Amino acid sequence: MSAPTNFRRVFSGKRVLVTGGLGFIGSNLVRRLVALGARVTVVDAMIPEYGGNRRNLAGLAGRVRVHRADVRDWPRLPALVRGQHYLFNLAGQTSHMDSMRDPLTDLDINCRAQLAILEACRAHNPDVRIVFASTRQIYGKPDYLPVDEKHPLRPVDVNGINKIAGEAFHLLYSRVHGIRATALRLTNTIGPRMRVKDARQTFVGVWIRRLVEGEPFEVWGGEQLRDFTYVDDAVDAFLLAAARREAEGGVFNLGGPPPVTLHRLAELLVEINGGGVFAVREFPGDRKKIDIGDYHADDRLIARKLGWKPRTDLRAALTRTLAYYRKELRHYL
Amino acid sequence: MSAPTNFRRVFSGKRVLVTGGLGFIGSNLVRRLVALGARVTVVDAMIPEYGGNRRNLAGLAGRVRVHRADVRDWPRLPALVRGQHYLFNLAGQTSHMDSMRDPLTDLDINCRAQLAILEACRAHNPDVRIVFASTRQIYGKPDYLPVDEKHPLRPVDVNGINKIAGEAFHLLYSRVHGIRATALRLTNTIGPRMRVKDARQTFVGVWIRRLVEGEPFEVWGGEQLRDFTYVDDAVDAFLLAAARREAEGGVFNLGGPPPVTLHRLAELLVEINGGGVFAVREFPGDRKKIDIGDYHADDRLIARKLGWKPRTDLRAALTRTLAYYRKELRHYL
Repeated sequence: MSAPTNFRRVFSGKRVLVTGGLGFIGSNLVRRLVALGARVTVVDAMIPEYGGNRRNLAGLAGRVRVHRADVRDWPRLPALVRGQHYLFNLAGQTSHMDSMRDPLTDLDINCRAQLAILEACRAHNPDVRIVFASTRQIYGKPDYLPVDEKHPLRPVDVNGINKIAGEAFHLLYSRVHGIRATALRLTNTIGPRMRVKDARQTFVGVWIRRLVEGEPFEVWGGEQLRDFTYVDDAVDAFLLAAARREAEGGVFNLGGPPPVTLHRLAELLVEINGGGVFAVREFPGDRKKIDIGDYHADDRLIARKLGWKPRTDLRAALTRTLAYYRKELRHYL
Repeated sequence: MSAPTNFRRVFSGKRVLVTGGLGFIGSNLVRRLVALGARVTVVDAMIPEYGGNRRNLAGLAGRVRVHRADVRDWPRLPALVRGQHYLFNLAGQTSHMDSMRDPLTDLDINCRAQLAILEACRAHNPDVRIVFASTRQIYGKPDYLPVDEKHPLRPVDVNGINKIAGEAFHLLYSRVHGIRATALRLTNTIGPRMRVKDARQTFVGVWIRRLVEGEPFEVWGGEQLRDFTYVDDAVDAFLLAAARREAEGGVFNLGGPPPVTLHRLAELLVEINGGGVFAVREFPGDRKKIDIGDYHADDRLIARKLGWKPRTDLRAALTRTLAYYRKELRHYL
């Protein structure tokens, strides 16, 4: 592990493009970048089923340029990427079920648009530094735990297949065309500004919504192990990946505090909330077909190479998230 | 290994769709299917840089329905797949270099159109039996030889990434939606009706063209090991994969006779031709970046599960191929 990176020195005054910048992780990243003095441009399609929400950048009016644009609209890409020092590429369709119902849309966003963005960079900004938001979903049902970056990729749904391609394009362009890119394979990320309206981004979102509304929530299965990254820790990882030369061309898992079963997570949430009810039920059939069983990430590679460590324990992550939605829920429905 | 499959009993009178059916392997497959009594429909886009050539189906007028259609034109797909018993899915962009120059076209054909075909089947013909032409290119630079189906997928070019996705969609639809599909990972296939105008389909094509024209040909590198499947053997594999229940949901390498170096292959060609000249030269830089080094397939899985064995040795394969182009070259330029 090397000396801590001075993010202000790296990003202050720099031009930074964040695709999906009105979304959950994107907006938390934008807020941090603005605080560090970066000149941030946000691109977000504001598709109702996805994570974009104008509330996520509340208080930043005049300090961030926001383009409502779809990354599938590739004639617009050259103008967007030109002149940027950094590109945080977080635009994506995240729902596994939606990817099965409407697979071509998932492909156009998670696969085709990624290649179009990279082509735009190759032609108009080959010196840009890119960090791509990949996902643990590409591993599929784990052969072993914790899952390291060498684990075979065996996607269980259309989303996983397209994310593999999207990630692979980034690494290929890094290797062959010298466009410096890093991919982070995220696990479940939680925190303020996540989508809570439904389970399209994470099931934890809809649990929290129900809790705040005083309604019971449903736990499907319950015995599956999952790990959770608090969004501020994920933002740290994006900044580190962009700032550090050792990250170029690399792929890194993000993990979190020790994994828990979904049942335990539900109990913990109820406890922190000071009350609440949940029901455990069987997996719905269509969902079961694409379930991955237990998962938790081996994140020692990013710890060793970039010095990243999740700093927020699960209780703190849930406490802060619940506090946010107690105040803000109406903006997320 | 089980009893030999009676292809006539399986395919006679059956409706069969072959995408890329005017191409190299596609047309050889179509000719065999027609001889077996199948009712064959061909779809081919006849894109000048690809393998489609009307000469490939010479003599079959009135016995095959040919649609000039592009698999990217997805509104046409439902009418094409409806009512077919078998779908041999061979439409593809095969040039590695073209995939680097024009990656989005490669994606639209090798990745997006494959998903659109499967969606058309899901909606309009879920009982169809599909065999997909995949490629050894998806393995990238081998970790070990011979390469079996468990070898990690580590594509070295855009073509490889898109073919992985195209293959994965087939296997996913098989697993989740019950659309019975098999993928064959082809190595270098050679034989009559291959593209010889240039190296877009296989470098062997352009070598043979030069030899027949009495011109010297170029061998890049020369020490790389490669294996070669004769096209009739590849056709056998497609038929077996479609006919045999054990193949459903499976992925199988095709191999060939023992591998040779490119240098040895060149010598053998010159010898069979009774003369000819070649020059060994360094890999061009852009080509070297995406070269995979040595490759040969472990094809024991398909031998064991489906009883497939390449029956044509390399000398016989080259002899027949040369004989074909001595007569037919002018139709392929």
